[in-house]
Order: sequence, then C-alpha cells, then structure tokens
Amino acid sequence: MAGGSGTRFWPRSRQRTPKQFLPIVGRQSMLRETVARVAPLVGPSRVLVVAGRSQARAVRADMPRLARRNLLAEPFGRNTAAAIALAALVLERRTPGASMIVLPADHAIAAHSVFRADLRLALRVAEESRALVTLGLPPTHPETGYGYIRPATAIPGTRRRVARVAAFIEKPNRRRAEALVAEGRVLWNAGIFAWRAADVLDELRTHVPAVVGPIEAALGRGERALAAAYRRIPSISIDHGVMEHSRRVMVVRARFPWSDVGSWAAVEPFWRGARNGLNTVRGHALPIDSRGCVIDSPERLVALVGVEDLVVVDAGDAVLVCRKDRAQDVRLVVDELRRRGLARYL
Amino acid sequence: MAGGSGTRFWPRSRQRTPKQFLPIVGRQSMLRETVARVAPLVGPSRVLVVAGRSQARAVRADMPRLARRNLLAEPFGRNTAAAIALAALVLERRTPGASMIVLPADHAIAAHSVFRADLRLALRVAEESRALVTLGLPPTHPETGYGYIRPATAIPGTRRRVARVAAFIEKPNRRRAEALVAEGRVLWNAGIFAWRAADVLDELRTHVPAVVGPIEAALGRGERALAAAYRRIPSISIDHGVMEHSRRVMVVRARFPWSDVGSWAAVEPFWRGARNGLNTVRGHALPIDSRGCVIDSPERLVALVGVEDLVVVDAGDAVLVCRKDRAQDVRLVVDELRRRGLARYL
Repeated sequence: MAGGSGTRFWPRSRQRTPKQFLPIVGRQSMLRETVARVAPLVGPSRVLVVAGRSQARAVRADMPRLARRNLLAEPFGRNTAAAIALAALVLERRTPGASMIVLPADHAIAAHSVFRADLRLALRVAEESRALVTLGLPPTHPETGYGYIRPATAIPGTRRRVARVAAFIEKPNRRRAEALVAEGRVLWNAGIFAWRAADVLDELRTHVPAVVGPIEAALGRGERALAAAYRRIPSISIDHGVMEHSRRVMVVRARFPWSDVGSWAAVEPFWRGARNGLNTVRGHALPIDSRGCVIDSPERLVALVGVEDLVVVDAGDAVLVCRKDRAQDVRLVVDELRRRGLARYL
Repeated sequence: MAGGSGTRFWPRSRQRTPKQFLPIVGRQSMLRETVARVAPLVGPSRVLVVAGRSQARAVRADMPRLARRNLLAEPFGRNTAAAIALAALVLERRTPGASMIVLPADHAIAAHSVFRADLRLALRVAEESRALVTLGLPPTHPETGYGYIRPATAIPGTRRRVARVAAFIEKPNRRRAEALVAEGRVLWNAGIFAWRAADVLDELRTHVPAVVGPIEAALGRGERALAAAYRRIPSISIDHGVMEHSRRVMVVRARFPWSDVGSWAAVEPFWRGARNGLNTVRGHALPIDSRGCVIDSPERLVALVGVEDLVVVDAGDAVLVCRKDRAQDVRLVVDELRRRGLARYL
C-alpha cells in the first residue's frame, strides 16, 4: 500500500513525492525498503503496489523493474478497505486460492529476519484457521498516535503468540494510553495483515459490500469504469470496515522493532549512525553549542548556534525549523500553504 | 571606510562580500547608503572610498560610478589610523586646506537630515577650532560592545552640544556600562569624525609617525611601494593612536538614531516595515506559533513551527539557525569553518 499522501515530512515530502517515495529512514525509499525487507519471503515479481493514479509515475521512477501489471493504480484514494479490496480481487483472479500479506509502504522495521519469521507465522495461522491475521506490536511507550489491540485469552493448546482479538481500541488519549500499556497484554495495531485473498474478500463482501461490489464490477473494464466505481464507494479503513466486525480476526504478537515514522521527531532512533556530537544529522551540519536537534540537509550547510531540540530540514525551495516536540504540527505548514495558494511549495 | 571584514553576518556575508557591500539594513548596500546619506553635504564626486585591494572589485561592483581615483585601495588592512592617514594624505595633496568627514561604511543611521545637521556642526567646530571632532551618541542602553566618551564640562559661552573630551573609555563590562550610562553625560563613540585633513595629519605625525611616515613616503610611487610601506606600519586604531592622546579633540553630542549593526539581532529595529505577525521577516517566511524571530530569506521559504527568538538566515549554499541572544557568536561558525578547511562556505 503506497497510496498515502502524508504532510508531516514537508518540506522533504511534497504532494507528488510523499514519504513512501523518499529515503526518510534509510538510503532507499521507504517503498523499496518495504519490498526489499520481504524479498526472501515474497519475490519482487509477486509484489503488487497499490497507489493513486497521480502517484503512478513516482512508483515507476522508484521501482523501474516493477512489472506494469503489478502496479495497481487507484483513480484516487478511498482509504485502506478499497485498496485492499482491489489488490485481493486482482490477486484472486490471477492466482485463485493465493494468500497475501498487506504492508504499508511507509513504516520502519528493524530485525528483518525476525520480521519475516513473524510474517511466516501469521501466514500459517491465516491459512490453517482461514483467519484474517493482524500483527500486534508490544508497546514500548504510551503512544497516542496508534490504535491498540486487546487479544482474547490465548486458546489453550495453541501457539502462545497467537490469539483471537477481544477488541480494537482507537487512538487513545494520554491517560487511556498509559492504562492500556499498564494492562501488559495490549498491543499496537500496526496495520500489517496476512490472509488468504478469498477470505478477506468474503469478509469485505459481508461487512463493506458498498466498497468491494463496485470495484469488482468495474475490474477489467478500463480506467473510466474503475474511476466511476471509486466515485461511488465510501472511504473507510480496513480496521473500521472489516477488522472490528469480523469474527475471523486473529492477532500474532510480533517481536520486531517497528515505527510508523509519523513525524521528523520519529526518525531519530533510525539515524543512530548519523549522530554528530549531540545532534542527529543527515547531510551537512555545523552545530555550535547545540543539542538534541534533528537535521536533514543533503545539499546545503546548516549551521546551528545555541539551539536545542529543533528539527531543521532543508529541501529544494524551502527550509523547515520546528520545535521537535511540535513535529506533528508540520502539517499546519502544509495547511497554511494551501490556504494561501502557495502551491509551488506543496 | 569600507575595509572591514566582519564575520557576524554569515552566511549572508562572506569573505569577499562583507556587510558593507550587502543590503543588511535597507535595500541598497550599507556602503551606498552611507554615500547617499551625506550626498546633499558631500557630492559623490568628493567621496573617497578606502578599502582593501581584495575588496576593490566589490566596491566597483557596488559603486560603478565611483571615479577610479576616488577608490583608495590599501594593500591590506592596517586598522583605522592607516586608512585615515592614506585618505587625509591624498585629500590634502589634491585639495590643500580641505576638510573631511570620516564615516564607517557599515553603520545604520536614521533621521538623515538631523545626521547631516550634526555633521555640519562638527565641520564648523573643526574648522573654527582646528580641532579633531568626534561625534558622540547619547546611549540608549548599557551597551558593552561600544567605547564611550566622557565630555569635559562645556566651555562657558560656547555651543551647548560641543565640548572638549575628558576621556575615551574602552568597551566596558556590563556593570561599568550601567554606571557610565547612569552618569548621564557620557556618550557612545561612533567612530564618525570631522576635521581638516592638514590637522589630522599634524596629529598623526605627532602621535603615530610610524603609521603616517611610510605611507606618505610611498604615495605616488606605485602599488609595490605602498605594499612595502604597509608591511612596515603598525596596526592601530585612530582612537588608540590619535584621539586618546591629542589635545585638539572635541566632541559634538549628536542627535540621530545610530547603530553599528553588530549582529543579526541588531537588524530588528531597522526592519520594522518587515514585521510579519510576531516576527521580523525579510523575504519568504511562514511562521506558525512562533514569535520574536528574525528571518532573512530572499529566495527560499522558511517555515517555522513553535519556535521563539531565533535568527534564521538562508543564503546561497548555507542556512543559519541561531538563538537571537547568541547572535554575536555567529563568528564561531566562521572560525569553525576555517578550522575544518571548509573554505567554500567562507
């Protein structure tokens, strides 16, 4: 799933090149890293990339060897239920009975072999139990930016890292997040799934027929038919549309370090190799009496004097200077640029 | 006097284009503004510009209509006594008996007609009394970056804004500066002078013969002779070399708003027309929940989120982010660039 259009990595990310097409965490784009990470498990020829039509050029530029038919271009974004329905329909037509893994293209994941082992377990559970399997991450802190999953008591005699889901919990406030983490068993909902295509299509048809029906009817009938279908379908996430209602949902407690890299402040742990004294730097920086700053400046020199806990990003025709604990609010800059009609910076 | 090589306006100012050649305060370079400011008093054809040989190109680029013979190029900088000796010698040879005004090319001065009236008074006192006249500014705050002048009790029956000088006081520490300002009559030493060329030459010959002698001997004998002379002469300021010792010094209490614009923090009052909400902006900026910042970015957009009291300067291949109360320490960046051999940013 490479269709997101994040705004929190402005000015590095722009309308046409959101985060997933950029080397935010490593040296390759997050999309390429996502594909490379699962390569030993899912060969590149079996990777489908779902993205918006307006992003198709960016996908092809980023992955020149992606087979043309493996790029599934949506007429426009209609949230994850539609993206997953489209991919599952295409996959089931091409390879009836196939299983699929659903991966957001803009997450950071360390310990790749652990990650793949967890995916293998999720696939096995999905195939054995005909379940929709979601990966849950043990929380490391009371994050308010993620949804949570409460697993049901493990079924006796089954694998200890696998459980049915008792409840999906929406992004909590700070106090609730602290209580959830204190429970001990609750997991972060990472939006990483494994299932048989036929099974998720069954559940999509049951719970969000208005999403899957029009896409199925339009498939193979050209771009205009698909666009007409997309105009009619509701925008709903796979979590709200299916996972929260289906009785076939199971969770695998995963064991790999994970982040959705939601803002510039979140890149710090991933740039550890880029520590420059007391600051975290990619590119050219000269910090004087400064600490705790995150600097991304591949082309120009950023000099700091006497500052703390800032994010400084130099990119093309714009520079961002942001307090690190306000990194989520970079989207306010994008909102304001839109409001003022300053499209050249978007 | 356009020979300075300041480092505190990096990255806007670079080795070859120090502050006086840049529009730091207004729309023209500070040098052009200095010349324009006195134009009704001293026509452009009667302006001599003293600068280093390495700056001659910058002067000509900035002032294409300056007569070639009015650009006095020093082989290298030897402080203000030498620069003034050179100008006074040239002027006295060309126009025996002439008076001169000495102006640093990198100061900001408001209320131009008041300024010119004060200069006229200084010239009249210089000519009537054969004095070396310095302009003193009533201090507005206990500045530690300036020298001070203590006027002697005014001579009865003379003009009330004119006095002999009791003492020149070097840049004080904070406590001493507060005590000086509390005295009430003490003035800032602005380094602006008026005198007859013959009179300052007399005093230069008396107090710093080692400066004026070699220059006088080399004058008219070519660049190499002048360079040989400059290599031999000591580097000393006109204040230390002459003003503090001469018995012909008088001070005029001036009445114009003045600043030597010693750092980025000092531009704030001069950019009043550039207030953008709670910040002071030249160029393109988008401040969100930010205040007290000074932004200079003529080409690229600087977006701020949640920051206070920063200086942000975008210039060519470098960006500066500096706490406003550390603006004096921008020179540390230049020092460090030198130490690391990063000459391309200097």
